[in-house]
Amino acid sequence: MTLKKTVAELADFLGGVFQGDGSVLISGLGTLETAGPEFITFMANPKYAAKVAETSAGAVLMSPGGERYGRTAIEVANPYLAFAKLLTLFYTKPHEAVGVLPGANVSDTAKIGEETSIYPGASIGKNVTLGARTTIYSGAVLYDNVIVGNDCIIHANAVIRERCRIGNRCVIQPGAVIGSDGFGYAPDGSGYYPIPQIGIVVLEDDVEIGANSCIDRAAIEVTRIARGTKLDNLVQIAHNCQIGEDCMIVSQVGISGSAKIGNHVTLAGQVGVAGHLTIGDNVMVGAQSGVPSSLPPNGIYSGSPTMPHREWLKSSMVLPRLPEIKKTVAALEKRVAELEARLNQPLEES
Amino acid sequence: MTLKKTVAELADFLGGVFQGDGSVLISGLGTLETAGPEFITFMANPKYAAKVAETSAGAVLMSPGGERYGRTAIEVANPYLAFAKLLTLFYTKPHEAVGVLPGANVSDTAKIGEETSIYPGASIGKNVTLGARTTIYSGAVLYDNVIVGNDCIIHANAVIRERCRIGNRCVIQPGAVIGSDGFGYAPDGSGYYPIPQIGIVVLEDDVEIGANSCIDRAAIEVTRIARGTKLDNLVQIAHNCQIGEDCMIVSQVGISGSAKIGNHVTLAGQVGVAGHLTIGDNVMVGAQSGVPSSLPPNGIYSGSPTMPHREWLKSSMVLPRLPEIKKTVAALEKRVAELEARLNQPLEES
Amino acid sequence: MTLKKTVAELADFLGGVFQGDGSVLISGLGTLETAGPEFITFMANPKYAAKVAETSAGAVLMSPGGERYGRTAIEVANPYLAFAKLLTLFYTKPHEAVGVLPGANVSDTAKIGEETSIYPGASIGKNVTLGARTTIYSGAVLYDNVIVGNDCIIHANAVIRERCRIGNRCVIQPGAVIGSDGFGYAPDGSGYYPIPQIGIVVLEDDVEIGANSCIDRAAIEVTRIARGTKLDNLVQIAHNCQIGEDCMIVSQVGISGSAKIGNHVTLAGQVGVAGHLTIGDNVMVGAQSGVPSSLPPNGIYSGSPTMPHREWLKSSMVLPRLPEIKKTVAALEKRVAELEARLNQPLEES
Repeated sequence: MTLKKTVAELADFLGGVFQGDGSVLISGLGTLETAGPEFITFMANPKYAAKVAETSAGAVLMSPGGERYGRTAIEVANPYLAFAKLLTLFYTKPHEAVGVLPGANVSDTAKIGEETSIYPGASIGKNVTLGARTTIYSGAVLYDNVIVGNDCIIHANAVIRERCRIGNRCVIQPGAVIGSDGFGYAPDGSGYYPIPQIGIVVLEDDVEIGANSCIDRAAIEVTRIARGTKLDNLVQIAHNCQIGEDCMIVSQVGISGSAKIGNHVTLAGQVGVAGHLTIGDNVMVGAQSGVPSSLPPNGIYSGSPTMPHREWLKSSMVLPRLPEIKKTVAALEKRVAELEARLNQPLEES
Repeated sequence: MTLKKTVAELADFLGGVFQGDGSVLISGLGTLETAGPEFITFMANPKYAAKVAETSAGAVLMSPGGERYGRTAIEVANPYLAFAKLLTLFYTKPHEAVGVLPGANVSDTAKIGEETSIYPGASIGKNVTLGARTTIYSGAVLYDNVIVGNDCIIHANAVIRERCRIGNRCVIQPGAVIGSDGFGYAPDGSGYYPIPQIGIVVLEDDVEIGANSCIDRAAIEVTRIARGTKLDNLVQIAHNCQIGEDCMIVSQVGISGSAKIGNHVTLAGQVGVAGHLTIGDNVMVGAQSGVPSSLPPNGIYSGSPTMPHREWLKSSMVLPRLPEIKKTVAALEKRVAELEARLNQPLEES
Repeated sequence: MTLKKTVAELADFLGGVFQGDGSVLISGLGTLETAGPEFITFMANPKYAAKVAETSAGAVLMSPGGERYGRTAIEVANPYLAFAKLLTLFYTKPHEAVGVLPGANVSDTAKIGEETSIYPGASIGKNVTLGARTTIYSGAVLYDNVIVGNDCIIHANAVIRERCRIGNRCVIQPGAVIGSDGFGYAPDGSGYYPIPQIGIVVLEDDVEIGANSCIDRAAIEVTRIARGTKLDNLVQIAHNCQIGEDCMIVSQVGISGSAKIGNHVTLAGQVGVAGHLTIGDNVMVGAQSGVPSSLPPNGIYSGSPTMPHREWLKSSMVLPRLPEIKKTVAALEKRVAELEARLNQPLEES
């Protein structure tokens, strides 16, 4: 953590332009409120622009043309992204290859790439292929014939079952399970006959899987998570699902079998998706929603069952007033009946 | 995967009857669309009957009396079940007993049955009993005094805590936890005193537990999953639950403490069930439903809280129209008030 | 399990007062229905008071002044709590220190306290500190620089990632993950750039974490679970959350990033909580509810989105009647229109 860089060097690293004193030394990152003179901070939300005047930070990442109140600044198109890149630069260690440590159980027939790390208690099955610079932490289990690409991190106690394939730069958090048997049974009159799940799971490049999430292998072919998609913790992906590129699947989402999810789809926490449907590209689904049938591209949906998000906002505001509405309707029925009765009386009697 | 059988042999194996050329050689299975001449396919849904005319498959599994368009066919009562049985025949390997492999941690006092397999990194506690032909994969942990029956598969990193009992032919997917402490605390005025959970979990024969599912041990007696019941991934079964036979509990369902679930019950994904209630035999509960109180046998329910499924279908169709209904009711109130005012005016003035 | 105590001794142990025969020998606990003469039972719910007359139990724990029907009784302020304490006394074993067993992978640089137990297949990283009388079961993995206090139980296959800190008397059930990376990504125009999650998780004293629950490390600072809080199974706590003291977080609850939960908060099963909000002290939220925004202290809430619990009870009772209400409103519209038409006709024509 003793890395120090000048503002000019950081601007260069980020492809940005510095304003002010390029020689200021930076050794870390902080928020507008907490960063000190050797730290750099960022201003991404215009709401907080005035805080730039008061920060003690040595420099500020901001959008081009932002008011810098005399501070030293680095102008970048995306200050939040730049902040993330500096976090990586200052606070993460480059991959350290430790090799196969004592206590790791590695099959003789496994093909282990260069500069890999396999920690004690990890188990690597027959004919497993591990790419270069990949790390397997303690207790992770790779069944026979698994293929893992380069620069992957497989955290402790994650499990990858037989024949599944993991791309490059994938991260699998602790306890995640890739390739468990799909939930498929044929009723046989009395009980259920388990249908062999002979397919696999494929994670393409840059996929990340959250802690204790589960991705079932396909019944016959492939359950696929396409390039760049990120899954949060405790997510369930059932067999035969096809998840597109660059999706964000938030914690505790469950997707039923054979669902097809497009690219750039966001499913918020605890969403449930029925099986055998299609969700179009760029769809966003609000938290706890239930998707019973296909959704066309580019919409925002909420509710269980789902409806357009704006409708749901309005509809859910009426829910607490239902008892009142029910009462009013009952009262109206009476009043209308009375009116009808009066109008049906001979007029002279009224 | 080099197994080859004639159609006549397969008909015999399935207890069915072939029509056409019984000498056709079959080496695998496929769908109506993808199966080639050495493959067998199945037609279970009458909707797809016409596809039989076009398939390239060497043979088709179908119901007796179905139109076979001149194809070689095997007639069986349940073509889908027959397909599952052939998947097993062609694509799954018989149990291979590898014994206790180096790197497995097995207590001296464990009783290990014949033809078992214990993989590196598995841990078997004191006085554990393992039946014949049972497989324990890497990283699975069996605490002291666990009993596992014959022909079970305990996948990687599954945990079975002390004294729990697993029947015959059970399958436990990776990361599942059997016998964790029930969530029981006694408020002691300031905080919570943990109530010892001294009971166990019993899984009867042919039970299957999904990846990362959790089944808590009973407070004092037994949490029981009866014969033939299947749990999907990430399911929660709280302490003291009694789950009946041949139930299907889909992913992310949560069942609260001391609930009693009948036989042949289906709970769809993300259903929540309150504690200390009874769900009758053959009940089906729709996805994301919340069951707040007991349900009599044989019904279909949905919603949170649950109502009969048909009512829920109609009710949920009204939800998006609530804002409109609220508006209409408000307008009606005004219109009725106006009518009332007019009728209360002396008639001559109108 | 051969411990025997007289009723007088147990009354003394519990700080209660016995009525009847203090010399009765007790060797275990049971329910009012099942306990025999050497067993003690408890009566906490006045509904079951009459059962005291019929129990075969040797003694009954009850509130001071309760009708004991001639039974030997121990009067205590909180009979349920007393029962829990006797369960601990009779049925749980004191910590047995077995040391570091063969097959455990323990770094040379780990500092291991007195009377600890580390089981085969557990992995303890560099510079880990373990307090006295702490137990680490098989397959549990502690990454580098983890600190665990005294008298903790870390169950099988639980994972604690780098630098996280666990207080005293904490219990972590099997498969739980502490310190997984928070779900933070910066859109970079095409895909998502992973934001390094450099913070940690702190569990304070007496915290318990359920099986397969996940607690993400903070992006920069600390995700904190305060003293005495209990989490059930399969709970998700996202990065930067601050959970107060003595909370009860029931199974499958999900709490989004940077949420701040007060003290003594109860979240029932499958509740979802949005990010960046505050829930006040003593709040209770009903099962399956969705909390979209901050809640003031001391309330009871339900629904998705949440409303006061009593409103929700009434509102949800109307849900099944929505189709009928919609129909009635449509009929009323017609009837009112007719009335209006009639009133607008010249009176002489009516």
